[in-house]
Amino acid sequence: MSSLKDHTQAGSERVVISVDAMGGDSGPATVVAGISHSAEKNPRLHFLLHGPKAELEKLVAKRQVLAGRCEIRDADGIVSMEDKPSQVMRHGKGTSMWSTLEAVRNKEAEVAVSCGNTGALMALSMVRLRKLPGVDRPAIAILWPSRNPQGFNVMLDVGADVRADARDLLQYALMGASYARNGLELTRPRIGLLNVGTETHKGGAELKEAFELIQNHAESGGFDFVGFVEGGDIPGNRCDVIVTDGFTGNIALKTGEGTASLIGELLREAFAYSPLSRLASLLALTSLRRLKKRIDPRRVNGGVFLGLNGTVVKSHGGADETGVSAAVKLAFELADSGFSDRLAARVASTAKRAQDGDTEGDGQKDSKAS
Amino acid sequence: MSSLKDHTQAGSERVVISVDAMGGDSGPATVVAGISHSAEKNPRLHFLLHGPKAELEKLVAKRQVLAGRCEIRDADGIVSMEDKPSQVMRHGKGTSMWSTLEAVRNKEAEVAVSCGNTGALMALSMVRLRKLPGVDRPAIAILWPSRNPQGFNVMLDVGADVRADARDLLQYALMGASYARNGLELTRPRIGLLNVGTETHKGGAELKEAFELIQNHAESGGFDFVGFVEGGDIPGNRCDVIVTDGFTGNIALKTGEGTASLIGELLREAFAYSPLSRLASLLALTSLRRLKKRIDPRRVNGGVFLGLNGTVVKSHGGADETGVSAAVKLAFELADSGFSDRLAARVASTAKRAQDGDTEGDGQKDSKAS
Repeated sequence: MSSLKDHTQAGSERVVISVDAMGGDSGPATVVAGISHSAEKNPRLHFLLHGPKAELEKLVAKRQVLAGRCEIRDADGIVSMEDKPSQVMRHGKGTSMWSTLEAVRNKEAEVAVSCGNTGALMALSMVRLRKLPGVDRPAIAILWPSRNPQGFNVMLDVGADVRADARDLLQYALMGASYARNGLELTRPRIGLLNVGTETHKGGAELKEAFELIQNHAESGGFDFVGFVEGGDIPGNRCDVIVTDGFTGNIALKTGEGTASLIGELLREAFAYSPLSRLASLLALTSLRRLKKRIDPRRVNGGVFLGLNGTVVKSHGGADETGVSAAVKLAFELADSGFSDRLAARVASTAKRAQDGDTEGDGQKDSKAS
Repeated sequence: MSSLKDHTQAGSERVVISVDAMGGDSGPATVVAGISHSAEKNPRLHFLLHGPKAELEKLVAKRQVLAGRCEIRDADGIVSMEDKPSQVMRHGKGTSMWSTLEAVRNKEAEVAVSCGNTGALMALSMVRLRKLPGVDRPAIAILWPSRNPQGFNVMLDVGADVRADARDLLQYALMGASYARNGLELTRPRIGLLNVGTETHKGGAELKEAFELIQNHAESGGFDFVGFVEGGDIPGNRCDVIVTDGFTGNIALKTGEGTASLIGELLREAFAYSPLSRLASLLALTSLRRLKKRIDPRRVNGGVFLGLNGTVVKSHGGADETGVSAAVKLAFELADSGFSDRLAARVASTAKRAQDGDTEGDGQKDSKAS
């Protein structure tokens, strides 16, 4: 299992995804069910599956669709949700998470998928995959249901690092634009910088500096910069990519999830209230399912680690079969578009341009390329 | 109209609210409609209404319920949504906003209500009412629909200042606890400090320092400290008061509002989709109205400015009659409970205790008082 997909023959050859079978809340059976579901839908998918060999072999043998498409890599150690990132960084060798990343490092797979401990996964990814040249702080990007035609916005960073200076925010803009081009098929994504108001005088000095940096790199970065955006624009249609530091992004993400989940609960209560409302919920079942599908976090499962030599998709720890399958689908799309290489090229070119003091040059040439 | 309510006779005497008739998006007619609505519901309410006299007299004359209960204070100037806070601070004299705050400053009214420009209102409030002794940064607190029995959580700061150091966050905890006691009738509110994880090692140095400060003042402050909370806890039931800096709080607030509004839109679309779903929405009308009422931002309209000599309720700029009435109701409750004085006493006592180096003393005595 050594052939990576060949970009010149896109659309036919196999795509290999490296999958951590352990570490999720519901165990390897759910992960295997998820990748089986993906395999049924997409004949080009192949897997490297990492975890205790004996256990995984039994699970995989039950799935006819995985026959010949899923190689098991034995790894006995498991990174738990309680393990501290610093510990895992030092003693993580031999775990399924380590093995999963190793396959990307060795170019046996282009994208890794894990449901495990986010902090540990980011720490191990930094150590094993290393940061891209020109990137100081990798970021985690997520897709957020929005009013945009594509149905989603990209937001980053949602928690790789609690801090981010102006240069980091510029890198996030470049990486987010690249992700939107390859993951959402937007030729020229619109970037917004998250702030407490849209007026240019709002926010602290760091944000003003980031504003100018991002504005100056819009042409060469192949994106449009819409300026400051507010929390209400995260699910809106003013921009396609929301750039912020990991502290703010993480709070916004969890606030949005919490709000959606509260409304969902209250909606269920409302429909269960009377015989009439129960009848109504039956009549509206199809419409409500469509709505649920639209905003179901399992359908957009997967934070993507950006800024590393290789792409890592972090699936929700509590992901069920549908969630794992959604993460695999995202991994496939990114692998198939050659995302990792394109992102690396984009960041390297901008870093070089910035170093040369040329903030706005002949970047137009490759605007559509990465 | 000089008699402020006498706390010893709570429940019968009149309560005077100072209301800015101008500055809202929909003009003075909406404000007058809103206070009329409140006046109908609550016979104890009296108003000082600020704005252009001739215009207001006509509007008030049409409302029988306001006869003898609404004194108009002539003020020709209007602070617009576009005015910069710094400008308003220097040249705001003669505006309806200035006049509204002046009535609180002169103790003619205990609480001020305005739909105007938030930044300008905060700037003017700082200048005219002055900060409470012991408070470095006033804060804006809002009520957030939650899973708690009281139906709401308090969150502050949501945008008075983008920065907050550890001591500011302690003040926010004290002020938020006082607000929850007087506004939500919680004897011993549970305070949470917003962070990207609940583990004590998460977040930056400032947050760790704030964690210890707040923990050390829990007994004397008359609240329980539940430690770090996450974005998902804002609409949750882990705590009653969420403490954070104004940057993060503002982003969380707008993200939550935006998410709720997107779901509302998608829900309406879902119900309009087919004849069957339209029938369902008719059958479920009562239940859906109940749900809407529960999470309708107009029902909890009013950010409260805390940490000043006097309380200011900031109603949403786009508030309609229902929204204005909700803000007046909140102002009444705070005035009726003697909130301003209690808050001042609480902050002063803690500031003194901290100055004396006594972080945990005999504060139990007055725990229930403010």
